[in-house]
Amino acid sequence: MHSNPALRAARTPGLRPRSGGGPMAAADEDAVMAGHLLDESAKGVFIIAATPFAENGTLDLKSLERLIGFYIDAGVHGITLLGVMGEAPKLTYDEARLVIRATLQQVAGEVPVVVGVSSPGLATLAALTGDAMSAGAAAVMVAPPAGLATDEQTEGYVHQLCQAIGADVPLVLQDYPQATGVHLSVAVINRLIDDLPQIRILKHEDCPGLGKLSRLRASALRDRRRRIAILIGNGALYYPLELARGADGAMTGFAYPELLVEVYDRFRAGREDDAHDLYDAYLPLIRYEQQPGIGLAIRKEILHRRGILASPTLRPPGARLDAADHAELDRLLARLERRVAAGL
Amino acid sequence: MHSNPALRAARTPGLRPRSGGGPMAAADEDAVMAGHLLDESAKGVFIIAATPFAENGTLDLKSLERLIGFYIDAGVHGITLLGVMGEAPKLTYDEARLVIRATLQQVAGEVPVVVGVSSPGLATLAALTGDAMSAGAAAVMVAPPAGLATDEQTEGYVHQLCQAIGADVPLVLQDYPQATGVHLSVAVINRLIDDLPQIRILKHEDCPGLGKLSRLRASALRDRRRRIAILIGNGALYYPLELARGADGAMTGFAYPELLVEVYDRFRAGREDDAHDLYDAYLPLIRYEQQPGIGLAIRKEILHRRGILASPTLRPPGARLDAADHAELDRLLARLERRVAAGL
Amino acid sequence: MHSNPALRAARTPGLRPRSGGGPMAAADEDAVMAGHLLDESAKGVFIIAATPFAENGTLDLKSLERLIGFYIDAGVHGITLLGVMGEAPKLTYDEARLVIRATLQQVAGEVPVVVGVSSPGLATLAALTGDAMSAGAAAVMVAPPAGLATDEQTEGYVHQLCQAIGADVPLVLQDYPQATGVHLSVAVINRLIDDLPQIRILKHEDCPGLGKLSRLRASALRDRRRRIAILIGNGALYYPLELARGADGAMTGFAYPELLVEVYDRFRAGREDDAHDLYDAYLPLIRYEQQPGIGLAIRKEILHRRGILASPTLRPPGARLDAADHAELDRLLARLERRVAAGL
Amino acid sequence: MHSNPALRAARTPGLRPRSGGGPMAAADEDAVMAGHLLDESAKGVFIIAATPFAENGTLDLKSLERLIGFYIDAGVHGITLLGVMGEAPKLTYDEARLVIRATLQQVAGEVPVVVGVSSPGLATLAALTGDAMSAGAAAVMVAPPAGLATDEQTEGYVHQLCQAIGADVPLVLQDYPQATGVHLSVAVINRLIDDLPQIRILKHEDCPGLGKLSRLRASALRDRRRRIAILIGNGALYYPLELARGADGAMTGFAYPELLVEVYDRFRAGREDDAHDLYDAYLPLIRYEQQPGIGLAIRKEILHRRGILASPTLRPPGARLDAADHAELDRLLARLERRVAAGL
Repeated sequence: MHSNPALRAARTPGLRPRSGGGPMAAADEDAVMAGHLLDESAKGVFIIAATPFAENGTLDLKSLERLIGFYIDAGVHGITLLGVMGEAPKLTYDEARLVIRATLQQVAGEVPVVVGVSSPGLATLAALTGDAMSAGAAAVMVAPPAGLATDEQTEGYVHQLCQAIGADVPLVLQDYPQATGVHLSVAVINRLIDDLPQIRILKHEDCPGLGKLSRLRASALRDRRRRIAILIGNGALYYPLELARGADGAMTGFAYPELLVEVYDRFRAGREDDAHDLYDAYLPLIRYEQQPGIGLAIRKEILHRRGILASPTLRPPGARLDAADHAELDRLLARLERRVAAGL
Repeated sequence: MHSNPALRAARTPGLRPRSGGGPMAAADEDAVMAGHLLDESAKGVFIIAATPFAENGTLDLKSLERLIGFYIDAGVHGITLLGVMGEAPKLTYDEARLVIRATLQQVAGEVPVVVGVSSPGLATLAALTGDAMSAGAAAVMVAPPAGLATDEQTEGYVHQLCQAIGADVPLVLQDYPQATGVHLSVAVINRLIDDLPQIRILKHEDCPGLGKLSRLRASALRDRRRRIAILIGNGALYYPLELARGADGAMTGFAYPELLVEVYDRFRAGREDDAHDLYDAYLPLIRYEQQPGIGLAIRKEILHRRGILASPTLRPPGARLDAADHAELDRLLARLERRVAAGL
Repeated sequence: MHSNPALRAARTPGLRPRSGGGPMAAADEDAVMAGHLLDESAKGVFIIAATPFAENGTLDLKSLERLIGFYIDAGVHGITLLGVMGEAPKLTYDEARLVIRATLQQVAGEVPVVVGVSSPGLATLAALTGDAMSAGAAAVMVAPPAGLATDEQTEGYVHQLCQAIGADVPLVLQDYPQATGVHLSVAVINRLIDDLPQIRILKHEDCPGLGKLSRLRASALRDRRRRIAILIGNGALYYPLELARGADGAMTGFAYPELLVEVYDRFRAGREDDAHDLYDAYLPLIRYEQQPGIGLAIRKEILHRRGILASPTLRPPGARLDAADHAELDRLLARLERRVAAGL
Repeated sequence: MHSNPALRAARTPGLRPRSGGGPMAAADEDAVMAGHLLDESAKGVFIIAATPFAENGTLDLKSLERLIGFYIDAGVHGITLLGVMGEAPKLTYDEARLVIRATLQQVAGEVPVVVGVSSPGLATLAALTGDAMSAGAAAVMVAPPAGLATDEQTEGYVHQLCQAIGADVPLVLQDYPQATGVHLSVAVINRLIDDLPQIRILKHEDCPGLGKLSRLRASALRDRRRRIAILIGNGALYYPLELARGADGAMTGFAYPELLVEVYDRFRAGREDDAHDLYDAYLPLIRYEQQPGIGLAIRKEILHRRGILASPTLRPPGARLDAADHAELDRLLARLERRVAAGL
């Protein structure tokens, strides 16, 4: 383990003791039990972990270990495996399970680990949830699948999925209409929060989403609704604005996790303008890395340049940087370094 | 006028006297006032009128006059202009106004005329509504436009459109998600019926839609909700089943309007099996003509063969039948004739 | 085995001996080797098999065995497992493998078995292909996944998938834009046929698709292109028309497979009008069962009423028939029986 | 006129003398003839003009005049009317014509004016093109409409539209799949450039689009293809990177047009890093204003605060800023001012 557990302990808010029963009861002996499940007090930076592949496309578990250590050293408050940016749909079931187990063993409870389990079918989703929770995950994350057309259908789906995974499994509900085509209105989210206590976190990446975030917080206050955690995504393109509007942190995957953590820390310390200043210095790169389609290739390339990933390879179908992309990235990184060196 | 007004009078249910004010008050003198607006008692066959073009693509008003006469002679209970199958988006505003005025002058109040006014913008929608109502239309029809993503947005849009056209204009709300991508749940439709008394008719073409139709009727009964008229679309592919589930008729555009009328009449007379028998004989052709994309070209070709349209031309972009299509249509029509000749 | 192998042998066109190597070489000993792979001469009715579940949602292998026997007794020329209408995405990987193995052992080479292996990721797709082929499948079927936006991307995907499964695995390419949003133009399909010899069958269910079918056949003739098999889908709503335009059969799942077979046989025997007559008698039910969303529940209910499935259960999310649906189905089936009894 | 024509003359590259004939020949006497049409040498900043409305939603022609003067004073090289961000679909045809005429009279040939004429139907599109060109527009802009599914269909549409508007009208082809769902591959764009000489400018806003821009430029060089102008959109989120990859300027609508012009000028002068420095200072605001849905409301608010628009009103359906949005904008503008005051 690369990091100092004492230091980290202060950085892992939002945990509560595991109760017995449910899928977790079936934990097999290899699994490292984290001892904690996520609740509504979750906050901070839950980094979306990349999934490292060797150049020939096989899983690279060495790089995964380095990456997880790097994230923890960067001070992240949690780790999210197998999100969209973790190339989850490109893994076989067995590979997904391998990534989950290796990571949970390495993390050993130091920070909570969320596992993305979205799947076209509830049977696979429930099976992967069982595997993740018994390996020590703190929660699972699901985005409602493409094809849900009305509020009624969307709510129905989330109820079905909660039934499928079991009421004792904490759920991170991902609101990501750009990727799924499923739109969750504030009214729907509020009804789901009321009906399903296992929803603990909203991963907020609707866009535009600033007003929605404020409406969610205001309606919860007005109706004395349970306040769940909201962690933002969208490649952090609106991160400090979202913190100011009531987000509790970020669940995204920028190649400089330490920047995400430091912006969060400054914000929490009441140094909002300092947080903005730092963020703005990285914004040209954040904007560059959040591009749909090519963004993950850029992120992996930076992680490769930083010595974390042995190879920047994505599994097909996936983008690959060409000479022009590399030159562009060189320039952006050089400009960032100059700016950081100049004290922003 | 080709038809017998005395006969027709019995066929135009659902009308009530016009009140003054609103867009209708501004009726210019050319317009023929029909004297009636549609209410919830509308029923029967409201044929979706094709818009005839000459081979060079110009509006063919002679064929339009023949077509409208043909529809009335076929016994339709109403006429709908400028629907999707009327190639409405392909007309300029001035052409749309011309079609509306010519038709309303010809119909002269014999049957109610509904005008499709869907438009990407509310200003154009409201202007066309004003033109249609002052020319004597009995109602306008609108399908919520692509891009509405949540129940909240969809309801918001229908409220905005009702405000834009004015509360005294009867509205046919078109539920056609296959074309628009906007899904109206039963709950949304019911709230709209409750909130907006000017919604008099639902044009029902969600698919699958049989269960939705039953749920709409059942929830209205249960909640003692205002019962609006439901007219079915989808090229009549489920027509007798929908009549049995509580539809009040059809608003579609099959090239044999007399078939749609006769099935309706048999059904109303309690002769359900006779209605099915007749319908089933035409089903191979109904199935053929309801094909998306090519269906309108088939419909116009049949209307051309029947001597109604001078040319089967569609404006681009639009399908055109080739030799294989013609041969196929020959065969289907020959089979239909044999079957009808054989007493079905 | 319910069927007569001698009889069946005549019904399994389009087979050629297996070559060694590739995924098939790794066939494990439990697997029953069919000895044959599909080639371009495939024809007839490849029934899309339903996947039977018990009322509690578990796989019902007894019913599966009965169903497969029923299909073979009905004279089908092939069986397709794990299509969209086989609820494939609702099975876990292990369940999918179980269905494949059980079916292939039972069929024992009597008819070729195609396995749907579509998956969001190529790794899972390739793994399932390996499992299917080593268990004795004659081909795999794939529909390009949602999100492919240009011809370039679509062609790129099909090349990637062929590389992932290996060049010796026969591929059924499914053209189903209504479900996937991916449109394959005639030009793209032709280029894929030219570039990828392992594409042996096109499952044609674009809609409207009649003209496309003719254009495919005409361009192949004109360019002396390899003639692949075309089997039609879309719930057989255009089946005899498609046979007349050059389709080689059907790959769909109507609850009366014997009807699909008999229409095919009449057509092949040159009795086109007889084929149409029979088909038209079933068309009210075909139209009813092809409804999106509810159609599979209707199909399973009929198979249940026919004594094949112990339960008509679909896994969630899935439709369930209510009392109105049952009454409607009763009526349609009664009408069908009367019509068949009356000699159509 | 607020600006110095002598100064402006140097800023309007890409013009060539009008030839007679076509829609332009029919120019009515009210129209101010600009004397120039756009060709492939177009470059610089073509600002997308907002359309000003009074608080009650009526067109505000006074503000429009102020806005056009403001743009010209800011040094823009061209003006684009009735783009998506000009709320074009919310205007009636007559209002659109009014905006076009008022602007062209005011501009009086000082800079070229492009008019967005996208419409669901070609008849309206062609009519508006005629009105725009006879009023003195330098080109029209069209985005292929939603629903085009294959390369074949998309190419077919652009050919049809060019035929509809006439070969002598310069066309700006808008590549904006996020809004239209229509994807133009590099191969399709290249074929269109080869086939249709009237395509002079590509408005590039595919996303991710950096690699596509480079591929377009590289393939044109390799194939000795006619080099058309490329102007970028997407709210300028990638503006300096796109200039470095071969874009000729921007066609977008940021509320600080002088920033867009200055970045362009620095870039042209070979001062790339200075261009980046300036751009990066504005990036937090550019990022804020490019948000879909709410972005235009932000832009209009800033233009209102700058004294250009009497009211920031959007026509419904349109976003409206609330107190939280205003506070956020206050902060972002204050930070921008401090940064500019500090020499960036």
